[in-house]
Amino acid sequence: MNENGHSPQVGIAVVGLGGAVATTAAAGVELLRLGHADHAGLPLAGVEALRDYDAFVFAGWDVSDDDLETAARGHGVLDAEQLAAAGPRLRRLRPWPAIADPEFCRNIDGLHRIEASGHRARIDAIAADLRTFRTEEGLERVIVVNLASVERGIPADEPALADLESFERALDADSPAIGPALIYAYAALREGCPYANFTPSVAADAPALLELSEEMGVPVCGKDGKTGQTLLKTVIAPGLRARSLEVEGWFSNNILGNRDGLALDDADSLASKLGTKGSVLDSILGYHVEDHVVTINYYRPRGDQKEAWDTIDLVGFLGQKMQLKLNFLCRDSILAAPLVIEIARTLDLAARSGERGIQTQLGGFFKAPMTADGQAPEHALHRQEDALHAWLTAASAAAVEA
Amino acid sequence: MNENGHSPQVGIAVVGLGGAVATTAAAGVELLRLGHADHAGLPLAGVEALRDYDAFVFAGWDVSDDDLETAARGHGVLDAEQLAAAGPRLRRLRPWPAIADPEFCRNIDGLHRIEASGHRARIDAIAADLRTFRTEEGLERVIVVNLASVERGIPADEPALADLESFERALDADSPAIGPALIYAYAALREGCPYANFTPSVAADAPALLELSEEMGVPVCGKDGKTGQTLLKTVIAPGLRARSLEVEGWFSNNILGNRDGLALDDADSLASKLGTKGSVLDSILGYHVEDHVVTINYYRPRGDQKEAWDTIDLVGFLGQKMQLKLNFLCRDSILAAPLVIEIARTLDLAARSGERGIQTQLGGFFKAPMTADGQAPEHALHRQEDALHAWLTAASAAAVEA
Amino acid sequence: MNENGHSPQVGIAVVGLGGAVATTAAAGVELLRLGHADHAGLPLAGVEALRDYDAFVFAGWDVSDDDLETAARGHGVLDAEQLAAAGPRLRRLRPWPAIADPEFCRNIDGLHRIEASGHRARIDAIAADLRTFRTEEGLERVIVVNLASVERGIPADEPALADLESFERALDADSPAIGPALIYAYAALREGCPYANFTPSVAADAPALLELSEEMGVPVCGKDGKTGQTLLKTVIAPGLRARSLEVEGWFSNNILGNRDGLALDDADSLASKLGTKGSVLDSILGYHVEDHVVTINYYRPRGDQKEAWDTIDLVGFLGQKMQLKLNFLCRDSILAAPLVIEIARTLDLAARSGERGIQTQLGGFFKAPMTADGQAPEHALHRQEDALHAWLTAASAAAVEA
Amino acid sequence: MNENGHSPQVGIAVVGLGGAVATTAAAGVELLRLGHADHAGLPLAGVEALRDYDAFVFAGWDVSDDDLETAARGHGVLDAEQLAAAGPRLRRLRPWPAIADPEFCRNIDGLHRIEASGHRARIDAIAADLRTFRTEEGLERVIVVNLASVERGIPADEPALADLESFERALDADSPAIGPALIYAYAALREGCPYANFTPSVAADAPALLELSEEMGVPVCGKDGKTGQTLLKTVIAPGLRARSLEVEGWFSNNILGNRDGLALDDADSLASKLGTKGSVLDSILGYHVEDHVVTINYYRPRGDQKEAWDTIDLVGFLGQKMQLKLNFLCRDSILAAPLVIEIARTLDLAARSGERGIQTQLGGFFKAPMTADGQAPEHALHRQEDALHAWLTAASAAAVEA
Repeated sequence: MNENGHSPQVGIAVVGLGGAVATTAAAGVELLRLGHADHAGLPLAGVEALRDYDAFVFAGWDVSDDDLETAARGHGVLDAEQLAAAGPRLRRLRPWPAIADPEFCRNIDGLHRIEASGHRARIDAIAADLRTFRTEEGLERVIVVNLASVERGIPADEPALADLESFERALDADSPAIGPALIYAYAALREGCPYANFTPSVAADAPALLELSEEMGVPVCGKDGKTGQTLLKTVIAPGLRARSLEVEGWFSNNILGNRDGLALDDADSLASKLGTKGSVLDSILGYHVEDHVVTINYYRPRGDQKEAWDTIDLVGFLGQKMQLKLNFLCRDSILAAPLVIEIARTLDLAARSGERGIQTQLGGFFKAPMTADGQAPEHALHRQEDALHAWLTAASAAAVEA
Repeated sequence: MNENGHSPQVGIAVVGLGGAVATTAAAGVELLRLGHADHAGLPLAGVEALRDYDAFVFAGWDVSDDDLETAARGHGVLDAEQLAAAGPRLRRLRPWPAIADPEFCRNIDGLHRIEASGHRARIDAIAADLRTFRTEEGLERVIVVNLASVERGIPADEPALADLESFERALDADSPAIGPALIYAYAALREGCPYANFTPSVAADAPALLELSEEMGVPVCGKDGKTGQTLLKTVIAPGLRARSLEVEGWFSNNILGNRDGLALDDADSLASKLGTKGSVLDSILGYHVEDHVVTINYYRPRGDQKEAWDTIDLVGFLGQKMQLKLNFLCRDSILAAPLVIEIARTLDLAARSGERGIQTQLGGFFKAPMTADGQAPEHALHRQEDALHAWLTAASAAAVEA
Repeated sequence: MNENGHSPQVGIAVVGLGGAVATTAAAGVELLRLGHADHAGLPLAGVEALRDYDAFVFAGWDVSDDDLETAARGHGVLDAEQLAAAGPRLRRLRPWPAIADPEFCRNIDGLHRIEASGHRARIDAIAADLRTFRTEEGLERVIVVNLASVERGIPADEPALADLESFERALDADSPAIGPALIYAYAALREGCPYANFTPSVAADAPALLELSEEMGVPVCGKDGKTGQTLLKTVIAPGLRARSLEVEGWFSNNILGNRDGLALDDADSLASKLGTKGSVLDSILGYHVEDHVVTINYYRPRGDQKEAWDTIDLVGFLGQKMQLKLNFLCRDSILAAPLVIEIARTLDLAARSGERGIQTQLGGFFKAPMTADGQAPEHALHRQEDALHAWLTAASAAAVEA
Repeated sequence: MNENGHSPQVGIAVVGLGGAVATTAAAGVELLRLGHADHAGLPLAGVEALRDYDAFVFAGWDVSDDDLETAARGHGVLDAEQLAAAGPRLRRLRPWPAIADPEFCRNIDGLHRIEASGHRARIDAIAADLRTFRTEEGLERVIVVNLASVERGIPADEPALADLESFERALDADSPAIGPALIYAYAALREGCPYANFTPSVAADAPALLELSEEMGVPVCGKDGKTGQTLLKTVIAPGLRARSLEVEGWFSNNILGNRDGLALDDADSLASKLGTKGSVLDSILGYHVEDHVVTINYYRPRGDQKEAWDTIDLVGFLGQKMQLKLNFLCRDSILAAPLVIEIARTLDLAARSGERGIQTQLGGFFKAPMTADGQAPEHALHRQEDALHAWLTAASAAAVEA
């Protein structure tokens, strides 16, 4: 039972609980509960079919064993008043030991690790954490969200991920093709936990795990949260298309100084990240933009305050050229944390509604929306928003009927 | 008959034919006909129900009697090759004398004026021009488009515009409340010509003239073409709303050095222009942005190359602030001219389909879309685009059936 | 005697003590004394001939009677820790009643006024404040700095300011040509107080007052502190000149939301402000830039955080065009306050060195540097800096000798 | 004898004659001669001691054998009128075959190569070109300027470059440590030709070649022309230092789409380029800026129109943060070509004045100014400018006396 007499009903178990996004999300739910925050930045605040924000409670894994108040202080996202108000709750949140693999994410390290070695032993440890969380807090459901730093990519034709049977064998064999993100996703699905992948890492989108999500009847979504620059791209590109302004080139530069930025200083992780950013533009415009360049640079003075700078070369009527430039001084965690919360609320409704497998209605929250059977994803934000609201309306109606 | 053997079928009679937008539109249709331009910047290029671009022919009025090649050379919009290719056609286009009234637009002047004095005499002169145009070119239809410099505003409760009867009396009395834009619109409607108002001036949106458009069975649309900064506003604001990012303030600065910029250096004309820019944001966001500031400055070095700079103050999750800045280096006429052409093509289809009165499906091309009976206009570009395409699909189907 | 056992030696009496710049300066000196601030932003920190920062103590006049802690809290310049540390000192600083005249500054008002009416009575009240300040704090010297909101301009040929005799007669006659800034400056000079004008208002630069400063043997300087956009102009323009890049146009836009911004919303005050900004560019470049446009807009969301946006049109080799754009997200008071402190320290040294009249070596701190006998001022920042350091070196040498 | 009856007196032999900078410089001198260009962008236009622009004539080497009119057409720097006017002259300029080494510059290639193999044979070929140029055009002097694409760096302790004797032995042994830039510089100096290195490649700055320049009595200068972003850095950083605004970080992003940009897409060449950009900031500010990041990206839509975007994090009074952003839409060749011309004119004067070795007065034209004996170079543009003008004044006086 929490402080205002309501029992939390749904748990959110976060991979990377000590990170800036997760601590901001946990603090945010607490500040909402205390009446210290309004609904700014929460796109689904008015949707009645979703559970209230204070029905949710956080837990999770991290390679650092700092409690979340300590972590939040380090991230510098919350202001002094917010830290003071959410502090007592955050102080009680201490991450479970995590699995981490330097082969998959080089620049981030930490000592707070699961002792078990071997894939199966690690899966058991994660499953045990999830079960304890559910029992101790008396939860109806636990939702797993991956907010860890991006891992290196995995080849699309990796046989270990091709189907569930191969994956199980690869687990037994402690295959080096299987990294932490896949382990967490597998454990979550096996435990019947809805799963969201907010990172670009390969996880529930692997065919083997999709098979598992269908088999277990669990809704999943991902991947790579759409927050800053890509968000703007999916807002602006449809407008350019609407006016037939041709995009000759789009140069995107990002600078950020938080743990994500540091992780991206590793070339393999960067490649994985850029992969999810790439196809958005062509998909919306309907043609290939050959000169679409995306760069990400680690730049410490900015901390969690990300800065995106875009310059777009346009060709208009009679072949004449124009330029549009964007400069977004944004806050990574402030943009991402409310999406994490809304994704969890929607997955909870999906689970209650009996949905399983890929939840395409959540595609608007992701840079690389998962789709079934190789279907092309919709990237234009306004169409994604329409699809989400149509699903919510239908689900709400179904909930009322039921 | 034009050079490639097709007869033009529809005339576009422009108020302000010598301006940068009109000369670019006229040159553009010619360059398309010659195969010297592709469909960049033309949003309805693929719509089959619309007549081909080379079915249209330009004429119109201007206070300068320069032929359009001379005018185009002065505007500096077309490049040398384009001027050379379109030159022979443009040279043959020489504006009819215009009406102009320094009481309504102070900073722009010219000597090429209709000699007739008095409202009725001027209307007769305009009507005669329209009839001659139709006859001499063997046109099915003439569409009138106002591209003149913005006039000062007219009070919303001006009795002379309240209904058609009052307007007719005010015309008889040579009322000083009636300016050139109203005279042109009245003459067009009386002649049965579809009418589009690409300027912020009061014209077909006056109740008296709406009554006339219904009575004459003529489609009308307006007002104030949505090209640069306001276009971006109606693309970006829906995206901010979709993420519940609150707009604390939006500062918009425009600098431009063409004839429009000079006209706007007159405070009354500027007030009229800013009026049509103002409500867009509140309408899309669903709340009042108190600190929405729009400035327009005449700055000669830029010529027709407009520059917009916006800075947007956002409040996100947990009340934290972010900034988004836009810098649009655009070309006024290159953005506007194709819209003029597409509006004319759509009005032609509307007329063929028997539409009369306000054409709301064209709202996406205007900063202040006209709506019937005080209905609130839709400003979000993607919704306007959906509405236009739905109308085009229906009209196309009807055309096929008929 | 202040808290660390040193007696303050020099007073700084500020016109507009409750404003953001003055409260920041007063807090800054206190934070330096407490060791809570380093020398960032203080250009003369290493100059030995100048007195230490903790030799200075603040007092002054304001139309608001809020103590400086209350004022600082309202301005939102200091962070929570700084407010806590400087609070006890700021709380004891309460402005003396001020003179204010709505004829000279319309948008700013307050009730904390000197009761005396008539120019002479007001001068007596100001002089009494200065004398009391000196006596009670046991000060060697009091320096007066004008930091009030800008007043409307005064015609250059106003006879009342032409010479000291005329000015005295105009004072006797309570001439409406004499506004508060002149009253304060006159009182300061009569009391033998060095005087700095950090505002664009006409004050010690009037011929009558220059005559008085010479007669009284008092050093003066001004006017209009060079902080944000004009500072950058005087840094960048010399670089453009060095490369013979011709400035075809320079468009400068400022948005700010503090009390200064509000005052500038009055057209007369704005004209006065723009006047001091105007000639800088031509003077540095050596030719007239016809398209030099400066705009200032009041925009509340930014508060004390000023934003300047400049776009510069350049012509390079072979007449080819380029653009340079600047976007300065700066803090008005953070840039201005340390200059106020350094100006006071330098005026103190000047007074000790026996200097009188205009102190041209301080020109680099001002947008419109005062010069003797109609000499053209130097505007290039690097030359101004060289001149200041040459003077400081000479004055230091003289001080050592003496 | 050229067309207006003057004989050219000084030759400029360019390594990379077909590049955008060299063709623009050659065209520029021709357009100046024809009166088709004014002195915009030419910083030393008014210096009387320098020879007139039309005293100079171009020739040089390139891996492409296109004549310069063809090359200029491809670079897209000159407008149609300029191409037409300079065309006849440019058409007659056809590069000599060049030496090129894919080991030193991977992304640029061409077939127009000196057939000679071996270092000594290549040096002979270059020397023969220089002698023929001088004789055929009847020139007093030939100046060699390196404008080729940047080569990969050479380790600072490479023994082959340590002194002239080692270098001669390495030449004899066809050492792979010696790349094209060194070969050209050696040949130039041996022929007594003043030499300027406008690229970041290691050339006359190698100790061996400095020894040779002293021995031969030849003036040299370099390296890496200071045109766009670094130019601005050396203009703005001194202004920040003057106000004690601390630079916490400076992020510099460059996008360009010309041949230089393509060459920089090779990591080794990029490293070499970034090396010359790096130390500028620390040197001017007087402290180490740890977060100084410079990126360069190849982005085709921009062609020769380079774009630099900088964001600077500043710490001001009381530790408060501010940001300054620069966006420079510039033209690489338009900025560089006039510097090449002015460097040649100054080297000519230096040679006439009997100067030998490093010409430090030319440091302002370079990102990494060469200095004697490990002295730290001056980077602040205004000090460099003062030094150059002081030297010119002295040299002019000496010339008058002589």
